[in-house]
Amino acid sequence: MADSTRVMVDFRTEPSRYRHWKLSIDGRVATLAMDVDEAGGLVPGYELKLNSYDLGVDIELHDAIQRLRFEHPEVGAVLLTSGKERIFCAGANIRMLNQSSHGWKVNFCKFTNETRNGIEEATAESRQTWICAVNGPCAGGGYELALACDHIVMADDGSTTVALPEVPLLAVLPGTGGLTRLVDKRRVRRDRADFFCTLEEGIKGQRAVEWRLVDEVVPRSRLEETARRRAAEAAGRSDRPAGARGISLSPLERTLDGDGIRYRHVSCVLDRVRGIAEITVASPTVPAPAGLTAVHEQGADFWPLALARELDDLILHLRCNEEEIGVWVLRTTGSPDSVEAHDRLLLDHQSDWLLREIRLFLKRVFKRLDVTSRSIFALIEPGSCFAGTLLELALAADRAYMLDGQREGDARPAPLVRLTGVNFGAYPMVNGLSRLASRFLDEPARADDLKGRVGQDLDAAAALDAGLVTFAPDDIDWDDEVRIALEERTAFSPDALTGMEASLRFGGPETLESKIFSRLSAWQNWIFQRPNAVGAKGALKVYGTGERADFDRRRV
Amino acid sequence: MADSTRVMVDFRTEPSRYRHWKLSIDGRVATLAMDVDEAGGLVPGYELKLNSYDLGVDIELHDAIQRLRFEHPEVGAVLLTSGKERIFCAGANIRMLNQSSHGWKVNFCKFTNETRNGIEEATAESRQTWICAVNGPCAGGGYELALACDHIVMADDGSTTVALPEVPLLAVLPGTGGLTRLVDKRRVRRDRADFFCTLEEGIKGQRAVEWRLVDEVVPRSRLEETARRRAAEAAGRSDRPAGARGISLSPLERTLDGDGIRYRHVSCVLDRVRGIAEITVASPTVPAPAGLTAVHEQGADFWPLALARELDDLILHLRCNEEEIGVWVLRTTGSPDSVEAHDRLLLDHQSDWLLREIRLFLKRVFKRLDVTSRSIFALIEPGSCFAGTLLELALAADRAYMLDGQREGDARPAPLVRLTGVNFGAYPMVNGLSRLASRFLDEPARADDLKGRVGQDLDAAAALDAGLVTFAPDDIDWDDEVRIALEERTAFSPDALTGMEASLRFGGPETLESKIFSRLSAWQNWIFQRPNAVGAKGALKVYGTGERADFDRRRV
Repeated sequence: MADSTRVMVDFRTEPSRYRHWKLSIDGRVATLAMDVDEAGGLVPGYELKLNSYDLGVDIELHDAIQRLRFEHPEVGAVLLTSGKERIFCAGANIRMLNQSSHGWKVNFCKFTNETRNGIEEATAESRQTWICAVNGPCAGGGYELALACDHIVMADDGSTTVALPEVPLLAVLPGTGGLTRLVDKRRVRRDRADFFCTLEEGIKGQRAVEWRLVDEVVPRSRLEETARRRAAEAAGRSDRPAGARGISLSPLERTLDGDGIRYRHVSCVLDRVRGIAEITVASPTVPAPAGLTAVHEQGADFWPLALARELDDLILHLRCNEEEIGVWVLRTTGSPDSVEAHDRLLLDHQSDWLLREIRLFLKRVFKRLDVTSRSIFALIEPGSCFAGTLLELALAADRAYMLDGQREGDARPAPLVRLTGVNFGAYPMVNGLSRLASRFLDEPARADDLKGRVGQDLDAAAALDAGLVTFAPDDIDWDDEVRIALEERTAFSPDALTGMEASLRFGGPETLESKIFSRLSAWQNWIFQRPNAVGAKGALKVYGTGERADFDRRRV
Repeated sequence: MADSTRVMVDFRTEPSRYRHWKLSIDGRVATLAMDVDEAGGLVPGYELKLNSYDLGVDIELHDAIQRLRFEHPEVGAVLLTSGKERIFCAGANIRMLNQSSHGWKVNFCKFTNETRNGIEEATAESRQTWICAVNGPCAGGGYELALACDHIVMADDGSTTVALPEVPLLAVLPGTGGLTRLVDKRRVRRDRADFFCTLEEGIKGQRAVEWRLVDEVVPRSRLEETARRRAAEAAGRSDRPAGARGISLSPLERTLDGDGIRYRHVSCVLDRVRGIAEITVASPTVPAPAGLTAVHEQGADFWPLALARELDDLILHLRCNEEEIGVWVLRTTGSPDSVEAHDRLLLDHQSDWLLREIRLFLKRVFKRLDVTSRSIFALIEPGSCFAGTLLELALAADRAYMLDGQREGDARPAPLVRLTGVNFGAYPMVNGLSRLASRFLDEPARADDLKGRVGQDLDAAAALDAGLVTFAPDDIDWDDEVRIALEERTAFSPDALTGMEASLRFGGPETLESKIFSRLSAWQNWIFQRPNAVGAKGALKVYGTGERADFDRRRV
């Protein structure tokens, strides 16, 4: 059995290298057709039959979503369909799942969930509405992809169905948002959802509309025309500028060098012995552009966008390729003034399509950090630059340590932190709250009060008093306190930490997204450990062999 | 290794049989002291040292909470403390957990969670406020018990601390609400909660107050006096009637007879071959009492209270003692008029302490059903009585099948269902919504519209149209359709069904309780499967042996 985790996964790609998707653009409407290359699996050991997908297919989908948002401001709607004649999509590849380690399965599901959440964000906030044309059987993860779209049109042709057959066929859940989106997004009545999710063959035709599983069914001959019309209508309602020029997402430069990972603004050193990644994020090195035109000219070089791309890639890289690095230590360097100037551009031009996209991208990156199953500590030391957008890193951390005063033998001044306008709602978490609001659930007014301190430099005592940092040891205590905290953290059970962090990071309200990452993913992870799914006679194990699964009948 | 699941657990007890708790009542304030008998474990193989608890200890706690509510209307506050000199409570017994099967652990946690939720409900809705006096080290499940109370007073004596040491010591979560109550109830800042939950030794004194972990600390010498004063203050604010006479919860009669379980109004037949429990609930056999006085005279014989007690016991019995019975089929018999008359009493006298208690008890019973990991089907057939309170059973079911018309050879009329006032909010689910509102998330107004049909008898077509039942086969299809549905259900993976049902039953909003049962419990269940906790070198396994746990360092 191949251990999928041995493959080094690169999340960087571009349309010319796509093997599984066909992207075309016609005025205000883009079409993204899933046309999976059976032989194009990311890992040896399986064929991607029936338009099924693996992580490699999803990496391309994720790239396509990003590029549509940044490179195509004129596109107001995206039509998602299948490029195959007889199948829409059979979902995640079962053989791939079957041969994967537990960690690979969990990580794969997390990425695919984030990608589908991104489709919904594109619809709601980028005003690029996703419309799905279901032109053949659409099962499991295939239907979950459709569920992420704003409108689902299905062919009424006798063979096209939507189905979530995971429970009856595989003894796992439709875990890429399926169960949650059924009842919470599409508001399918719970008893109908129960029936539907136990039905191998799925549901077609008018009943699928009546049960709210799809939005409309039309004869196969009218499917494309109908879906195109829906897409054109949605594009017509979009505020995206038809005449604007997109920003080219040029190839992301990255150097992997032993235990070092380097981008332009972000670097990371892995301490494999201690299991720690030391991540440093640098402020802009050049002054902020003078205005909107200059931002557009900088394009992918504009610091907030470059930062988002680099951090995003690093998070995905570490999650997938460095499982044994359990603690991420975040540091920053540079000029708070420069960060604040860039933040001001993001806020002053919120209605500009590009600055909106950049803010949304940063929001997604910070959300990725929040749902990452690694312990995250921020260290705020002399020379650091935890201001505005970069302060979100400290607010996303499980703990922040800030040096109180200077270090002996170090002429640099004591560290300071600075709030900017972006800390008050520009980057909401999956629970819908800003990180400040999530932090002060006990005093909801406190986050608002802090608005009065925007732009001020807060020293350790002030930051501690404001509740922005956890601890503020002085130079005498710093080394021991930080060292012990890290040593302890790396000694605890990785699983217990994952469950603890997932519980403590998300107080307060719940949303569709937070429910997917909490309830649904946690249950799926549990099931991915259960012998009834993954044991020698488990359903996932015997699928396709002709053997029957043999279940332990005890309910727990 | 003893398999704890082999013990037949009886959830019925009474104060004269308590081994672990001392209950005393002084006017408006009751004192419940935890004084665990080390030798009183429910299952052989462990000693209940340091006031640690097992299911048996919790069954007594649950009984005490019930009796305080029903037998002591005069009690407006409950003081929870330890009866030991040097320890408050060390939490769930580790050896017990260690020797238990996965199912036992999960079921134990579910019951203890429900019991703690009951403490909060007693405070909020029965106006019997729980005050906790922490008079010694209070760790893990001990602190989780304190967290369920409305106010925590802690001794400031150098040795008394609160702690959640599960992650560092045992590689599991504080899973009985601890993590969730920290951030969502007490609103402890997430970074402080992170630190606290990794601290074996816990936190004491003023810092515990500052961090919101307890409400006040006082010198040991003033602990009892302070806690009593808080309790007296709370009791003074209670609307419970100081002069009323309580209702005696007489011993619950139950006959276990091979595969049959019989109470007065509830019966159950187990089909062990098919893995199905056939449960039948009967309406009252006598007319509803004429008024409030008559209800009080009936006491524990008043049908809604008797029903609640019997159903509650049956649910707990089946969950704990019949793990292989994966499907519960619910039927009813009797007179809808009589149920409606009883429902009217519950609604007309909502401010009466006893009728309030009975409604709240029924609410808890239905909530238990909602979070039970069994598939639940309601069958609505001739002679059935799905009206009002009993209709909640169908609304709680994963599916309801209703026969359309009569059966050949059966003179009884076609079945009918009837809404009464109680279906519109008397029994909210853990998500805070009525089952009708949870059902119609797509059209929130629909539940309100149905108020216009209260008291009407709806036949299958009308019930289907109203969205109250899932399917309405006629006599020709009934037997096959129901048989196939049950056969299929019992053939699916029990684990996949558990995850699916837990996801589909709770659409809509989230509450502290729903978060405990979804996020927290699901993560804990996952951890209870992970080798880092339960493997040969897992932390739970080696705890107390002097050996060190050996962790797989990969994060998933």
